[in-house]
Amino acid sequence: MPHETAIARLQELLGDRLSTSNAERTLHGQNETYYPNTPPDAVAYPETTEEVSQILQICHAEDCPVTAYGAASSLEGQHLALHGGISLDMGRMNRVLAVYPEDLTCTVQPGLTRKALNEELRATGLFFSVDPGADASIGGMAATRASGTTAVRYGTIRDNILAIEAVMADGTVIRSGSRARKSSTGYDLTHLLIGSEGTLGILTELTLRLHGTPDAVTAATCRFEDVEQAVQCVITTIQCGIPMARIELLDHMMVRGFNAYADAGLPEKPHLFLEFHGAPQAVAEQMASFEEIAADFGAEGWQTATTTEDRNALWAMRHNAHYASAALGKGKHIWPTDVCVPISHLAEAVAQSQADATRLGLTATIVGHVGDGNFHAGLSVDPNDPDEMARAHEFTHALGETALRLGGTVSGEHGIGIGKQSFMDAEHGAALAYMQAIKQAFDPRGILNPGKLLPAQPQARAAE
Amino acid sequence: MPHETAIARLQELLGDRLSTSNAERTLHGQNETYYPNTPPDAVAYPETTEEVSQILQICHAEDCPVTAYGAASSLEGQHLALHGGISLDMGRMNRVLAVYPEDLTCTVQPGLTRKALNEELRATGLFFSVDPGADASIGGMAATRASGTTAVRYGTIRDNILAIEAVMADGTVIRSGSRARKSSTGYDLTHLLIGSEGTLGILTELTLRLHGTPDAVTAATCRFEDVEQAVQCVITTIQCGIPMARIELLDHMMVRGFNAYADAGLPEKPHLFLEFHGAPQAVAEQMASFEEIAADFGAEGWQTATTTEDRNALWAMRHNAHYASAALGKGKHIWPTDVCVPISHLAEAVAQSQADATRLGLTATIVGHVGDGNFHAGLSVDPNDPDEMARAHEFTHALGETALRLGGTVSGEHGIGIGKQSFMDAEHGAALAYMQAIKQAFDPRGILNPGKLLPAQPQARAAE
Repeated sequence: MPHETAIARLQELLGDRLSTSNAERTLHGQNETYYPNTPPDAVAYPETTEEVSQILQICHAEDCPVTAYGAASSLEGQHLALHGGISLDMGRMNRVLAVYPEDLTCTVQPGLTRKALNEELRATGLFFSVDPGADASIGGMAATRASGTTAVRYGTIRDNILAIEAVMADGTVIRSGSRARKSSTGYDLTHLLIGSEGTLGILTELTLRLHGTPDAVTAATCRFEDVEQAVQCVITTIQCGIPMARIELLDHMMVRGFNAYADAGLPEKPHLFLEFHGAPQAVAEQMASFEEIAADFGAEGWQTATTTEDRNALWAMRHNAHYASAALGKGKHIWPTDVCVPISHLAEAVAQSQADATRLGLTATIVGHVGDGNFHAGLSVDPNDPDEMARAHEFTHALGETALRLGGTVSGEHGIGIGKQSFMDAEHGAALAYMQAIKQAFDPRGILNPGKLLPAQPQARAAE
Repeated sequence: MPHETAIARLQELLGDRLSTSNAERTLHGQNETYYPNTPPDAVAYPETTEEVSQILQICHAEDCPVTAYGAASSLEGQHLALHGGISLDMGRMNRVLAVYPEDLTCTVQPGLTRKALNEELRATGLFFSVDPGADASIGGMAATRASGTTAVRYGTIRDNILAIEAVMADGTVIRSGSRARKSSTGYDLTHLLIGSEGTLGILTELTLRLHGTPDAVTAATCRFEDVEQAVQCVITTIQCGIPMARIELLDHMMVRGFNAYADAGLPEKPHLFLEFHGAPQAVAEQMASFEEIAADFGAEGWQTATTTEDRNALWAMRHNAHYASAALGKGKHIWPTDVCVPISHLAEAVAQSQADATRLGLTATIVGHVGDGNFHAGLSVDPNDPDEMARAHEFTHALGETALRLGGTVSGEHGIGIGKQSFMDAEHGAALAYMQAIKQAFDPRGILNPGKLLPAQPQARAAE
């Protein structure tokens, strides 16, 4: 067995919270997308920061890879133990450690999921805003720099984390940030670790910003004749400064998916799904302003949802986009990809991706957080069809190139993981060497999530 | 002359844009606070990124320190060439390179000041929100992670920078971030360089978020019987989610300063200075909600300012707090310090600092961005009075300890610079070694702003 010594030492530390069973390993090798099952050599279930530190001390000493595992909802394979070693399942570190309602903050463990947190917060009148759709773990969301439907109003997870505790490669426990809302003391390690996909340290505690539940919430939908009109409506809305809480685009193919998956009965045209938050007068004012803009772009079928039940049904449908995309092709998997562009180039990027899908003979849904210029393409693929997989790969590559050409980024929220390392040089150029220098300084043995985010460095030249 | 070879090589590169005159050197050794004049050995005036790169290549080869210089408004001595070498005056790199009104972004050079930027943006209906009071350079604000009066609504500079170009210690030019509003591709070098006080790289270009000028703006002031009441009013306002654009506290001593400096004619009681932004109905709604809360805390003397002229007069007064503090002691300098605490502890922190000033026989004004839990103490000191300087040092030390005890940070926006390095260990603990590892990896020769931010490392043990 690979990493035999490390696993033996971990078993001594954790007892039956270290498993090498096939069932556990296979479970931790699964993913939501097209990657083949990638089992780790063992699964560890730490319960405290101290245990995470001890685990890393052992793995550091034994050169054993450690890949953190949250809710397994990552979309670029971030939680897969690509080089074997330990899957560090944070699921038992899932407590709310403290809520500070007067400060609009709370401190949680990384294995807690966002829905469980919001359940616990219900009585306080506060909520945690970041909503990537899946019921992701907070630690996983931080590690992958997640965002989602409400980022346009409340920011991404990056904007909503004040402080972290992390265990570094050799087991050192650090804290970064504080419960204060801002600081200018020293290098921003908090935001360096956020989005580092578990390659620089393991998050063991997070202090989050919360927001007051708005007095009034109204959701709405409307449809447009074509995507161009819908996107221009979004651009104008953002430019006018209407503080949208959510503004989501669905193209006609995505609507077809919802009709197939959830019997939505929507006309197969591009739609916007919207939400307005605020004091009652402010919400009415925002809605009126939006309706005026939307009318200029030929919006039809305006429908509002004011009851909690109706709103929840609407967003539940939206959040099932992944499964609704899958419903378009029997037995197919979804290859999800995302990019983010300056909003002025959004229409061009969406049109280009639709044209690419057509050219490559792929079924692709488009859905996105268009207020941020961020959208997803969900490709129906059969992982056993090498030709289709090659075309999907070509689509993803073309989409990334489109985003870079338009001044954007190859991922707005899914991250790099396994799937997008080939873009790192094109997107970051000379900066990549500084990322590699940080990785080398923080994790010289390369035990933290090896094979992710940073492309393999060119081989050192053989000594002459 | 120290660094003779480097200076000769730079002179060859820059001609008369490299000065060793006493006048230029003395000018660049000045500061707004209590530090003695600290002249560099020479002053360089680059005009392009390429020139900054060439300068750093030379200084790197010659082990010559380089300290970036913007508008010299930093408050912890960040722009002073403490170890000699070159003061890199970015003042000639002060252009707006592009405005993207549809994206609410622009790209600027670091020497541009925030007022000059807003002047250029006037016709677009957009504005750059970060307002630290002084007409600071954008590069300097980024380097020190500045914020100011409007951060409570629009975020600090950290939240308003999308992308940077920077020249690293050896002259390598990197870019980080993009014009897209978010990204999850790779380590966040943008936010690592923001707040690094010129110790990791020199910013040469910044892409900023802009905001739409609100339809309606109303400023207002009111006063309270004591600081406790004023602060509790602020806490309640923030907790209720009223989206304040500005909410500034002035204690009775600060009001006395405004009366002395600007003949403000205000009753010598704690005041709040406020601003509300939004659509007309929303502003009216916010103001009504605030007034209701303020009344519960005994607010009096409610006055509003709706015309641009009246509002400008109000905020000009506020922005002169530094000079108004100085007006309290003839011929005295101001030793400015700031901390930031969780808002629930704000009243305690303010009361403690007032008690400390009294105990130490110091005149201190208190003014702050209290919506963020951030406040400033301005101590009147005579730098030639060692006893008073020692008491001021004791005050600052006690204030930093208070902030840490209450779960906050020793600086919300002024930074570490020269003055607060002694707190770095207490605030960051084990994380400090990771900051030092980054510094070592990025600037192994230590030429970038040496003597700032990071405390000197313990001497290496002599070989036995």
